[in-house]
Amino acid sequence: MPTISKKGQLMPESPIRKLVPFAEQAVKNGKHIYHLNIGQPDIKTPEVALKAVKENDVEILSYSRSEGSETYRNKLANYYSKHNISVSNKDIVVTTGASEAIAFIFGSIMDVDDEVIICEPFYANYIAFATAASVKVVPIISSIEDNFALPAIEEFEKLITPRTKAIMICNPGNPTGCLYSEEEIRQLADIVKRHDLFLISDEVYREFTYDGHSHFSILELDGLDEHTIMIDSVSKRYSMCGARVGCLVTRNETIRHTVLKFAQARLSPPTYAQIASEAALETPSSYFEEIKDIYITRRDTLIAELNKIEGVKVVTPKGAFYCIAELPIKNADNFAQWLLEHFHLDNETVMVAPASGFYSSEGIGKNQIRIAYVLNKESLVKAANIIKEALKVYKD
Amino acid sequence: MPTISKKGQLMPESPIRKLVPFAEQAVKNGKHIYHLNIGQPDIKTPEVALKAVKENDVEILSYSRSEGSETYRNKLANYYSKHNISVSNKDIVVTTGASEAIAFIFGSIMDVDDEVIICEPFYANYIAFATAASVKVVPIISSIEDNFALPAIEEFEKLITPRTKAIMICNPGNPTGCLYSEEEIRQLADIVKRHDLFLISDEVYREFTYDGHSHFSILELDGLDEHTIMIDSVSKRYSMCGARVGCLVTRNETIRHTVLKFAQARLSPPTYAQIASEAALETPSSYFEEIKDIYITRRDTLIAELNKIEGVKVVTPKGAFYCIAELPIKNADNFAQWLLEHFHLDNETVMVAPASGFYSSEGIGKNQIRIAYVLNKESLVKAANIIKEALKVYKD
Ligand SMILES: Cc1ncc(COP(=O)(O)O)c(C=O)c1O
Ligand SMILES: Cc1ncc(COP(=O)(O)O)c(C=O)c1O
Repeated sequence: MPTISKKGQLMPESPIRKLVPFAEQAVKNGKHIYHLNIGQPDIKTPEVALKAVKENDVEILSYSRSEGSETYRNKLANYYSKHNISVSNKDIVVTTGASEAIAFIFGSIMDVDDEVIICEPFYANYIAFATAASVKVVPIISSIEDNFALPAIEEFEKLITPRTKAIMICNPGNPTGCLYSEEEIRQLADIVKRHDLFLISDEVYREFTYDGHSHFSILELDGLDEHTIMIDSVSKRYSMCGARVGCLVTRNETIRHTVLKFAQARLSPPTYAQIASEAALETPSSYFEEIKDIYITRRDTLIAELNKIEGVKVVTPKGAFYCIAELPIKNADNFAQWLLEHFHLDNETVMVAPASGFYSSEGIGKNQIRIAYVLNKESLVKAANIIKEALKVYKD
Repeated sequence: MPTISKKGQLMPESPIRKLVPFAEQAVKNGKHIYHLNIGQPDIKTPEVALKAVKENDVEILSYSRSEGSETYRNKLANYYSKHNISVSNKDIVVTTGASEAIAFIFGSIMDVDDEVIICEPFYANYIAFATAASVKVVPIISSIEDNFALPAIEEFEKLITPRTKAIMICNPGNPTGCLYSEEEIRQLADIVKRHDLFLISDEVYREFTYDGHSHFSILELDGLDEHTIMIDSVSKRYSMCGARVGCLVTRNETIRHTVLKFAQARLSPPTYAQIASEAALETPSSYFEEIKDIYITRRDTLIAELNKIEGVKVVTPKGAFYCIAELPIKNADNFAQWLLEHFHLDNETVMVAPASGFYSSEGIGKNQIRIAYVLNKESLVKAANIIKEALKVYKD
């Protein structure tokens, strides 16, 4: 039998996927599960987007332009200008989710064995895209003790080698919920300029910032147009994960030209989803205010409940809808599985994401879990209580 | 300024893309262009598919399963069984177009510098996906003199090295319109078995076979379950190119497991498009009969007209909706550009795809063009006449 590739063997399994059979069994056994494990919001997609698709008048569902529909890119440029990001439609390449943007960027700037430095813990799939492109993620650890702040410049500089092509951040951060300040972004600008690197920023959670903190995009930096590449998506902003529409934005023409060759190879992003995404740009601002209120309530509820549990350490997230919680246990992978397999409170349990999947450094984050606060307040209280009771009886 | 990757530089430009500025200028100058250059059919998408999207009741546009929606895969398996391909839903991974299936397969079976043998001329983007994966396409030439038949086994065997991982075919073929017989497929089966290789077949044009010839899928082969991987798409079948839904089908569980890791990394295929694709499976068979009749008329018209032109050589395609025509000129790239820039007949001209983009062997196919017969009969007659008149005055 012919064998699969080494690359295919190295491709990581999703950190949650391993737990799915145990969750399915739990449901079969009649348990109710609170799903804190995925970044799939329970928020309704804006009506204006749903309506546009229902009322579409497509007769021949054709390929769109490889760089995305012209009208959509025009309106997107306008959206960015409202966020203090001045770009034109030509700076935007529409992709099939932020996911594809990541793949295109890795392909366009890195060759086999090249390196990208990423703050750890990070969105688990970065590793998968790096593996697919045969490039290396060099992790730089940000720690829960430091509120997951940007590591010091010197720490970055220790890791830069002749193979380093880029520094990549996720801001606001999945899984940490951290939000980098303008000052932190300027520190990064300084490093990439000095070492002639690209700066990639995944800003898919741009709208999700709390407590009056505002988001500072890398595209707001002056004099860095050749270095900065921003990644975006409609998935979280409009609760439109299933659309599969994202984009990358850069003022670097060479990058865009190169990315476009990858984009042409796959022909076009999905047409219906672009109709939805274009219409979604008309979403009233009240929608975001409501959602923000919802997430702030959820976050505050969750953090308060977690803080009541002895031995649990958690940082109040400033953005996105995740937090990392450190638990008084040794191995969160085992704990997460045990919650599904062996624990219940009134026939209910919780599914969480063990944080180990968000680290590439061996042995770090083993006692941490990621919680996505994508459930209503009552559910979050119950879920936190389940974790509390579970920890009382759990033995590593 | 940080530099792009070598891979990014090597990524081929689409063979048609270079001509786009000339086409745009021609339109600005008031010329009408007959587009024979792209595989975007002018056929209407089945009403049943359009309707399903218009009547969808999605409220939260969520990620689907990474392997594609369960109901869609169930119905797809049923569709295949009608085409003499017996597979179950678990053998299918739904992808974002056939394009993504190609990328996933290359990643799953090949490492850097591994090789895949592909009959030339081939779908141009195979090279792009190979470049993105840092793997090598080894071309095996099929020639117009031979009606683009499968090259002899010995020719394949000459090219097999320790790095060869797969043989890949496109059946029916883009750009040749060739349709491999069951006997030819069995020859391939023999080679891949003997040399322990994968056999990949791109069957996105399955329905488009003419003159009573029927399609023989590699999945109809017995005893080759570990070797065969089939690629498919709704793009051409239902004139739904903009959906971006394809799939790969294999009975090899290890491959599926590996492909699924790539699929999980990009989260899911597009949701609206899967609704359309699932509904499209209810398309009445009369739809295909009508389309087939249309394409046969177009093909016969085109081939008859081309055969009237002195010095033009063309093979009557048995499938898909393309043909390769050899012209009495030296350089078809220049000719295609000249048609747009300098020629017109009653203010009309033609856009064709120079065949050089479908060859990776240097210097082959230089005097060939690919014609997509995706226009109505009258337009094809006019377009062929333009080529005829153009050749009378064109000087290489
Ligand atoms: C940080 C981050 N980047 C990218 C993605 C992928 O988003 P998309 O659905 O646009 O592919 C996600 C999805 O969860 C994410 O959390
Ligand atoms: C032979 C062949 N394979 C694959 C594709 C890509 O199809 P999809 O639109 O499903 O990505 C095409 C598109 O023209 C094609 O001709």
